[in-house]
Amino acid sequence: MAEIEPSAPVFDTLALIGIGLIGSSVARVARARGTIARRIVANARSERTLARVAELGIADACEIDPARAVVDADCVMLCAPVGAYAALAEAIGPHLKPGAIITDVGSTKQSVIRDVGPFVPEGVHFVPGHPMAGTEFSGPDAGFAELFEGRWTLLTPPPGTNAQAVARVRLLWERMGASVSVMDPAHHDRVVAIVSHLPHLIAFTICGTADDLADETRQEVLQFAASGFRDFTRIAASDPVMWRDVFLNNREALLEMLARFTEDAQAMARAVRWGDGGYIEDKVLRGRKIRQALIDLNQA
Amino acid sequence: MAEIEPSAPVFDTLALIGIGLIGSSVARVARARGTIARRIVANARSERTLARVAELGIADACEIDPARAVVDADCVMLCAPVGAYAALAEAIGPHLKPGAIITDVGSTKQSVIRDVGPFVPEGVHFVPGHPMAGTEFSGPDAGFAELFEGRWTLLTPPPGTNAQAVARVRLLWERMGASVSVMDPAHHDRVVAIVSHLPHLIAFTICGTADDLADETRQEVLQFAASGFRDFTRIAASDPVMWRDVFLNNREALLEMLARFTEDAQAMARAVRWGDGGYIEDKVLRGRKIRQALIDLNQA
Repeated sequence: MAEIEPSAPVFDTLALIGIGLIGSSVARVARARGTIARRIVANARSERTLARVAELGIADACEIDPARAVVDADCVMLCAPVGAYAALAEAIGPHLKPGAIITDVGSTKQSVIRDVGPFVPEGVHFVPGHPMAGTEFSGPDAGFAELFEGRWTLLTPPPGTNAQAVARVRLLWERMGASVSVMDPAHHDRVVAIVSHLPHLIAFTICGTADDLADETRQEVLQFAASGFRDFTRIAASDPVMWRDVFLNNREALLEMLARFTEDAQAMARAVRWGDGGYIEDKVLRGRKIRQALIDLNQA
Repeated sequence: MAEIEPSAPVFDTLALIGIGLIGSSVARVARARGTIARRIVANARSERTLARVAELGIADACEIDPARAVVDADCVMLCAPVGAYAALAEAIGPHLKPGAIITDVGSTKQSVIRDVGPFVPEGVHFVPGHPMAGTEFSGPDAGFAELFEGRWTLLTPPPGTNAQAVARVRLLWERMGASVSVMDPAHHDRVVAIVSHLPHLIAFTICGTADDLADETRQEVLQFAASGFRDFTRIAASDPVMWRDVFLNNREALLEMLARFTEDAQAMARAVRWGDGGYIEDKVLRGRKIRQALIDLNQA
């Protein structure tokens, strides 16, 4: 692969397999800047989504058949829920151009390597990726060109991946405004389990716990949602299929982090029951310290 | 007690016992509007805090001795951490003016009635209150006049409380921009346990869980704090003494809600372990529904 001129697009044809919040944001930033891809092909499972993409005018071509969507692409980006990756990879694998790059935006990386890897043909480069950006909204209308601005994208290329292919995917994300870090896939899955997957599991759970309360209390839960609960519901208002797939595909790391959290919550419960004020204060102080560290790192 | 004219202040002298985020916000809104109190007396535990209050110019008088702070007050509002209430009530009880109203802003209400009630002299009216507003900041600099705007304040008068005293405290909060609801104290404690106390306990806990991870992962937790974890740290960056006191003084309701949540989290863990995608999807959908209900109620 040749060097990319600063003003030239990173890819000629970029195929987006799935065009929800993330895929449509990639399409929008590619439209907004001339330096991402010359041509965007959008693929979705439903004609309805593709019709909406055509209306929004964020892709150059819409194609319902993933195999046909990738034939001209020098980069294929999987933007579907990770549970759909194995079938998609099997469908597109034989149709990928020699020298093409296949990448993705899934929140789990070991499962993606397990599911996609076997279908990547000789001469095609596979660079798994994970933009750590999102909102509680989903679908092609939810995307916006600034979504990746100032956020991290993690790349987890398997050992032996072509370095130039990795560099090109890195450049793609940098040109979309993201900072890029390369990480071991297993390590990635543990970090995101505590940073993102466990907080979402907790938020979904507490909404259910509240919803199970007696009718009168439930009404008041909604009425008096103070900032604590309200913030949890924002996190909880996410896409069900995407999160189902994330949980099922990062099972071990997620269960480990949940087990650690549960032990810690039980220790807190014990401190509350036995009136151990010092223990509680210490935990709140640690929360403050972590918040301060995030502020110092510009992540707050 | 006579009717209050629309343009007249609700109270002549309002004594704020404790002047952190909430107390200093009350002081500020009283300053900003002429209809709350003619005169504000501020009390704090430390000369340093009172010196700062004097610098900020948000009180008419500063008094380090709570007993002296209340002598002229027709309303005394306890704005200290709830663990300090019993000692404060004992100190001020004998010095309260006949006909005065004592109220508070604590997040637990059964404990406040238990701790303050015995020290309220005959002829003084006790109207426990809880403004459901706050930020992650604390101290007299953290307050602002708009804090209560559009938020709920819950009043939990014990049976037999003078109705006019309740009406006057209601008017006070309404004039500070809040909506007011009257509630049974035990019911209040259960509602806030799920709406506010449990979310805070969870947020403090997950920050500790993350902080206990191996050094390398911890750095990355900070670096890659996606929106999920970041929102939890905001909640967790709260005042340690205030929250210690809240947890210890709403023990039963908090432990019950934590036990319910833990059962639900274990059910979710089981679904993740055994690949029950339908269960997970259903929980995420419930989170969405609750979020939508909050949006419909203008609480989101």
